[in-house]
Amino acid sequence: MSTGQRQHADPRGNGSPRRVSDVFEVMRTRSAMRSYTEEPVADAVLERMLDALLAAPSASNKQAWAFVVVRDPARVRRVRAFCPGIIGVPALILVACFDRTQAPDDPGMLRVGRLCVAMAVQNFLLAGHALGLGGCPVSSFLVEPVRSLLDLPRHLDPVLVVPVGHPARQAEPSQRRAKAEVIRYETWK
Amino acid sequence: MSTGQRQHADPRGNGSPRRVSDVFEVMRTRSAMRSYTEEPVADAVLERMLDALLAAPSASNKQAWAFVVVRDPARVRRVRAFCPGIIGVPALILVACFDRTQAPDDPGMLRVGRLCVAMAVQNFLLAGHALGLGGCPVSSFLVEPVRSLLDLPRHLDPVLVVPVGHPARQAEPSQRRAKAEVIRYETWK
Repeated sequence: MSTGQRQHADPRGNGSPRRVSDVFEVMRTRSAMRSYTEEPVADAVLERMLDALLAAPSASNKQAWAFVVVRDPARVRRVRAFCPGIIGVPALILVACFDRTQAPDDPGMLRVGRLCVAMAVQNFLLAGHALGLGGCPVSSFLVEPVRSLLDLPRHLDPVLVVPVGHPARQAEPSQRRAKAEVIRYETWK
Repeated sequence: MSTGQRQHADPRGNGSPRRVSDVFEVMRTRSAMRSYTEEPVADAVLERMLDALLAAPSASNKQAWAFVVVRDPARVRRVRAFCPGIIGVPALILVACFDRTQAPDDPGMLRVGRLCVAMAVQNFLLAGHALGLGGCPVSSFLVEPVRSLLDLPRHLDPVLVVPVGHPARQAEPSQRRAKAEVIRYETWK
């Protein structure tokens, strides 16, 4: 088991801690966490999350992305004030941007580049969950104030903001639509 | 270790197989695979990938998505003919769609719903890689022919097509931009 791996409380409540590192278990047990303690995120933990972030697929390997990590508590609060989608006060906020300069004359890239940013964010969230943190992707934010607070140049478009912190409560799995409702075989008919 | 978990050849070439289930290892070693053998994907393996797919984050838990799994070899070839981004002949193609009916009067949802589809695709690819399969997200495809071949109604917008199969060669890790080039702290300045 690698450095920085944390133990999760057993959700069955029997007090025996368990590790969450199996990729299927990590994906199955992750859910949006919007309530955080004041505990900061350790540097080593953040680094592992950032490595995961950058390991995501990238269309034509353009890596047309840019990320700002906000950890200063005062700045976290200022950014959060312009993100109605962030409920609790997180230890950090990742602002995930599409970088237009990496796809100057490619309208298709403008579309797919944002999808790559989303896939990177999913890696980041999975890594965080495996390390005992909670978070969620947030699209409800005011672009221009966030741009101003973070000194983002015009060629960087914020796509998602991602609050992350130590969970203040147990995650509740979300209700999901039936598999047969959203997956079909061969054709949609 | 769960059913269906496969062993990967050791990329160091010393012949000792190793399992890839640690989430960090899965993310680190995944890369785009565009060349596939003719071996089909087992039902149990596909089911685990689909469970991972549907465990992705979903804005406002709308789950505004719909997926078609194409496995019939003749239909795989027909769909592939309209997807210049698919290079080899995969065992299956997942067509990942945004479902407009789940977000009827919400323009923000139209934008973020596609990001959720991308995050689901990333879960699907990570699960596939953990199970010994290769694939990649493809945005280069002709929407209307794909729509027609799969009988997709107008309210389903295909966002990504995802070829998956048993890798025909060893994956080569892609070159990546330096971490310091794409990640900054507190502000972009």
